[in-house]
Amino acid sequence: MTERVWDRFLTEQDKASLAGKEPRRVGFGERPALLLIDLYRWVFGDKPEPLLESIKNWPGSCGLAGWSALPNIQTLLAKAREVDIPIVHITGLDGVGLEPWSVRRESKRANMNPEALERTRRKFDIVDELKPIPGETLLRKSSPSAFWGTPLVGHLNFLGVDTIITCGESTSGCVRASVVDGCTNRFRMIVVEECVFDRHEACHAVNLFDMNQKYGDVLPLAEVVAYLDAWRAEKTRRGAAGTNGLDVIRDLAAGEEFKAYR
Amino acid sequence: MTERVWDRFLTEQDKASLAGKEPRRVGFGERPALLLIDLYRWVFGDKPEPLLESIKNWPGSCGLAGWSALPNIQTLLAKAREVDIPIVHITGLDGVGLEPWSVRRESKRANMNPEALERTRRKFDIVDELKPIPGETLLRKSSPSAFWGTPLVGHLNFLGVDTIITCGESTSGCVRASVVDGCTNRFRMIVVEECVFDRHEACHAVNLFDMNQKYGDVLPLAEVVAYLDAWRAEKTRRGAAGTNGLDVIRDLAAGEEFKAYR
Amino acid sequence: MTERVWDRFLTEQDKASLAGKEPRRVGFGERPALLLIDLYRWVFGDKPEPLLESIKNWPGSCGLAGWSALPNIQTLLAKAREVDIPIVHITGLDGVGLEPWSVRRESKRANMNPEALERTRRKFDIVDELKPIPGETLLRKSSPSAFWGTPLVGHLNFLGVDTIITCGESTSGCVRASVVDGCTNRFRMIVVEECVFDRHEACHAVNLFDMNQKYGDVLPLAEVVAYLDAWRAEKTRRGAAGTNGLDVIRDLAAGEEFKAYR
Amino acid sequence: MTERVWDRFLTEQDKASLAGKEPRRVGFGERPALLLIDLYRWVFGDKPEPLLESIKNWPGSCGLAGWSALPNIQTLLAKAREVDIPIVHITGLDGVGLEPWSVRRESKRANMNPEALERTRRKFDIVDELKPIPGETLLRKSSPSAFWGTPLVGHLNFLGVDTIITCGESTSGCVRASVVDGCTNRFRMIVVEECVFDRHEACHAVNLFDMNQKYGDVLPLAEVVAYLDAWRAEKTRRGAAGTNGLDVIRDLAAGEEFKAYR
Repeated sequence: MTERVWDRFLTEQDKASLAGKEPRRVGFGERPALLLIDLYRWVFGDKPEPLLESIKNWPGSCGLAGWSALPNIQTLLAKAREVDIPIVHITGLDGVGLEPWSVRRESKRANMNPEALERTRRKFDIVDELKPIPGETLLRKSSPSAFWGTPLVGHLNFLGVDTIITCGESTSGCVRASVVDGCTNRFRMIVVEECVFDRHEACHAVNLFDMNQKYGDVLPLAEVVAYLDAWRAEKTRRGAAGTNGLDVIRDLAAGEEFKAYR
Repeated sequence: MTERVWDRFLTEQDKASLAGKEPRRVGFGERPALLLIDLYRWVFGDKPEPLLESIKNWPGSCGLAGWSALPNIQTLLAKAREVDIPIVHITGLDGVGLEPWSVRRESKRANMNPEALERTRRKFDIVDELKPIPGETLLRKSSPSAFWGTPLVGHLNFLGVDTIITCGESTSGCVRASVVDGCTNRFRMIVVEECVFDRHEACHAVNLFDMNQKYGDVLPLAEVVAYLDAWRAEKTRRGAAGTNGLDVIRDLAAGEEFKAYR
Repeated sequence: MTERVWDRFLTEQDKASLAGKEPRRVGFGERPALLLIDLYRWVFGDKPEPLLESIKNWPGSCGLAGWSALPNIQTLLAKAREVDIPIVHITGLDGVGLEPWSVRRESKRANMNPEALERTRRKFDIVDELKPIPGETLLRKSSPSAFWGTPLVGHLNFLGVDTIITCGESTSGCVRASVVDGCTNRFRMIVVEECVFDRHEACHAVNLFDMNQKYGDVLPLAEVVAYLDAWRAEKTRRGAAGTNGLDVIRDLAAGEEFKAYR
Repeated sequence: MTERVWDRFLTEQDKASLAGKEPRRVGFGERPALLLIDLYRWVFGDKPEPLLESIKNWPGSCGLAGWSALPNIQTLLAKAREVDIPIVHITGLDGVGLEPWSVRRESKRANMNPEALERTRRKFDIVDELKPIPGETLLRKSSPSAFWGTPLVGHLNFLGVDTIITCGESTSGCVRASVVDGCTNRFRMIVVEECVFDRHEACHAVNLFDMNQKYGDVLPLAEVVAYLDAWRAEKTRRGAAGTNGLDVIRDLAAGEEFKAYR
């Protein structure tokens, strides 16, 4: 395999221990959904600025990492809409009197100037470029993972989803937590590399390594787009052939088989 | 519809409020599993005895209600094995130093005589007639519901299950709690009427009513067996026709459609 | 004990099996919270009407049962505010594109006239008499239980709550499901009898019996109010004595001890 | 602050973005518990060997990292036993017919030689040095996190625990997943730096950074031991003073206050 973003962070011993191991893939399943995590104003700010600049006004900003990922996420979202898979947007739950998930996360609104308060008010607004449209699902969470404290697992179960294509931020925070929980709930987890971002370069890279090693497949956008096109073509073919139902798109599955019913 | 076991417990107002309502069914899905809840020694005792007799030595016993259901549950389990659907047995988790789910459930072992201690030791042994066999799943729970504190939802998700056929005890306790949680997780819940039982007659009847009204379908054993036979026939037909995968057995679905992917 | 609302629904055998058993209580703990479940417009309608009348326009109505409970719930809520315990309101989650927890619960908005649509729009508005005020928590759920798909357990854990005083509707639906889950999560569950209601009389009574038998204490409003007064008095006494912290109000605990740390 | 293990993995930009930020601490609470995660044979092997050697026979081994942490974990466990806080051991759930949490984790027992099979059989045995003793809790999990699919949150809630002191392996796997879930459930999470380990050096370091930034406090063993001694002294003092209950050991809390009841 070509070089990966995490290679430069691994130690010599890390690399040596990986040397003999063949990479294994989880693979795509038959019923994908797209999960967009925390793509709200708080992590972008109002305009692209270098990280050290942007955090002056937007302490939760990821700087240019977010703005660079944005067109990729737009491409992914457009493709998901085009091939018509379920789409779930996640943002933060706020203003309901809930205790925070870390004492360090309590906002200090008392000390804020009007501009800061106004930014806080728009904190969890999903950015215009990625706004949910009718037919898409919007859930609000109060913890790192998209699964905890939300009805996500029931929603996906109702839909028969077996594969979750993930994007958003931060790689080392809510994306990672959601990928761990998705894998735990026995979904096939796909992380689209150009569509996730993080404030810290080391954390972005090493968390991608962790997820790819343990919980899912970290794949380039092009490969995910190709899968979605192939998936739609197969779906259309079956519809034309009168084969009721979508199911078993086996030939598309690039990874190992879930034994399941199939 | 013919008379149901709960009819005699409803008040006149209850019946009047139900009068105009057409019954709706959840219906069977395409990928059923069988869930057997708490069919352990503690609720049977060692031999059939009337309730008021059996609770002298087995305070958790359901008396003859359990022994009457036993052959029906055997029929259901045999059919599930014959048509080869996933089977999950649930029993209690004990002896691991866990705090109980109610202060009233703490066992008072200090005061027990040797016979009582011996019965307690066998408490959570699934009865011989229903013992799990290789290939079946056995999970241990520490709460009323089979879902809480167990990996059940992940296991069923991995298998692509959409329909849970439920039996066991007690109707008003662990069966009900599991049916609520199964429905909550967006499974189609089927309760087999002759295969669930309870110590209290009023609770058995009214909890069946509640489940049938709100969370799933309470059906006779014969109908569930007929579904499983039809399901297997369709599966076989598709295998012969080279149609890969099981999926969409639409014609079998007696209820309303989940919209889902299908 | 005096007669209970469920007595008339129990069979002779049910009563006989209960005859020898001494009632046990869970008891109050040291850090109570109030949980108000689903007290929204949909179950009241706009004015008190007998059930068979009210369900013509408000199919989710509980008729006069709700309106009769309302002043009792107001009393309980006022007392909780007066003694300053955490208060959590629960209502439904709607309009976010989420799949329902039962196929039978999908709304048929397509067929609605404008008046019905307008009622549906106000469905999950908590009634004016019980509206949350600043400092109280409001969570939205998408299943019977207040715990599933919400951050409730984390919120209560953060607050150190050990006792949940419950009211709302329906006794046989969301109250029951929440009480089972609260007990499962090892809280002391208290159900205030005059503050819960249901559309069906048999279900109201038998579910109270089930909860009192298995999961918590079903108590009269007067007893809960007396506990809250005693709790506040003890809190004040300790504050005056310079004993930092609230904790161990042992003398108030009417039930059996959780062993816990204490 | 002195140099931390993760410093050498951070990029220049990472360091610059952290430059202005004052470190904040979650702090200890009043009711700690010790959580030991996955300290079983599979990650140690039978004797200390360098990683590249040990993984030949024990593919899940962490090499010398585990053996180096072992005496530290023994110190921590001994102290927890001495001061008498709740102790929970976590290991893997196996042999119950459960589907795995990743297709890549399915064991390939068919191809194993007898020695490999024998090692697999002992896989989830907690090592002798850290074996649970009576009065301690042992839970088995089937996912990365100690919380998912186990009754852990209810158990801790019953005990009134507010602080979880964590050790075990791997830093980047089950420790991290458990710390995220513990924080999510609103516990104060403490990671004892010398008592967690990982196969990969970069992952160990960067995951410690992530946890310390977002979810809890990564502290040296000596500080945790000092807290436990102080906690016990305060407990004893209060017992002697007749102050019933443990509670509010405020002066010990090194971090920010949970507002909670306190």
